Amino acid sequence: MNFLEQRILTDGIVKTGHVLKVDSFLNHQMDIALMDRIGEEFYRRFGDKAITKVLTIESSGIAIACSVARCFGVPVVCARKTKNINIDGDIYVAEVESVEHRQSKVVVGKKFLSSADHVLIVDDFLANGYTLQGLISLVEVADATVEGLGIAIEKGFQEGGKRMRNLGYHLESLAIVEELDETTGEIVFR
Amino acid sequence: MNFLEQRILTDGIVKTGHVLKVDSFLNHQMDIALMDRIGEEFYRRFGDKAITKVLTIESSGIAIACSVARCFGVPVVCARKTKNINIDGDIYVAEVESVEHRQSKVVVGKKFLSSADHVLIVDDFLANGYTLQGLISLVEVADATVEGLGIAIEKGFQEGGKRMRNLGYHLESLAIVEELDETTGEIVFR
Repeated sequence: MNFLEQRILTDGIVKTGHVLKVDSFLNHQMDIALMDRIGEEFYRRFGDKAITKVLTIESSGIAIACSVARCFGVPVVCARKTKNINIDGDIYVAEVESVEHRQSKVVVGKKFLSSADHVLIVDDFLANGYTLQGLISLVEVADATVEGLGIAIEKGFQEGGKRMRNLGYHLESLAIVEELDETTGEIVFR
Repeated sequence: MNFLEQRILTDGIVKTGHVLKVDSFLNHQMDIALMDRIGEEFYRRFGDKAITKVLTIESSGIAIACSVARCFGVPVVCARKTKNINIDGDIYVAEVESVEHRQSKVVVGKKFLSSADHVLIVDDFLANGYTLQGLISLVEVADATVEGLGIAIEKGFQEGGKRMRNLGYHLESLAIVEELDETTGEIVFR
């Protein structure tokens, strides 16, 4: 069992609807030492790739992305969920199917991704993979290279991780949750 | 002229509507070395206070907040702009007047702020100060102590900074922009 799985067992809380709350250390309150350890672990797993950018999406992926990017010595590019006034009109857009089957958009400024870029995509959670697919689309439409996908917590009982691996992406999830028992609060890792 | 002012002069772009775009290094693409330097500078300015939490708001304050919190060895608490399914019902709420004079809300989980906390509030921009006022309200309703306000870029021609200083808060802005000339692109600091 690794450091993140250990922390999830200690401080994670199982809620109804297959929700795993990690808000005391990962996304609402953030333990910076843990973020840095996650960053170092992704550097260990992807450090042989010549990463030029770490791409994430607002907002809960940002803290992890910053710790990863520090290890690689590269910038973070933060995609946004809707078109923002402060982003130039010159943007790449990807449609994202949300959980409620409504379409939403992720966008990134064109000047921040180019064909010269080798991108590590980072996020806190992977469940159905719709958001991750949107980020991959942004990289591919920019003609940049997806070098890997770094996820803190994958919900192994949803199909996102399987789909990404089947598509041939190098996906590394630090903790893969296989079961969340809403009655006992038990968390089972793959 | 300090390192942030220097960087703004080099890479900031003035747009119509008194907009200063710093998206190539501060909030859309993020230069992590710059974030760390900002963190160290806030530590220099607030290091005599016994800070227990760094509070920010999603999403563009998060990267700075993480670098600041690392220096202090404390967690980041990230307030959210609307009630989120992953935040417990037990939340503090503050109303925020937005630029368009519509009301919006900032929320934070009650378990992340207590009367024992000494809070440094951090954000990337200060303009009219409505968001910052909302964050201060969250700290005060939790009966915690606001030890200081750390802002990367203050728009000195808007009233937020003046109001915060008049209210007696210890506000430190690393760059105070006094004028943005939309015609020439010139940026004047206080």
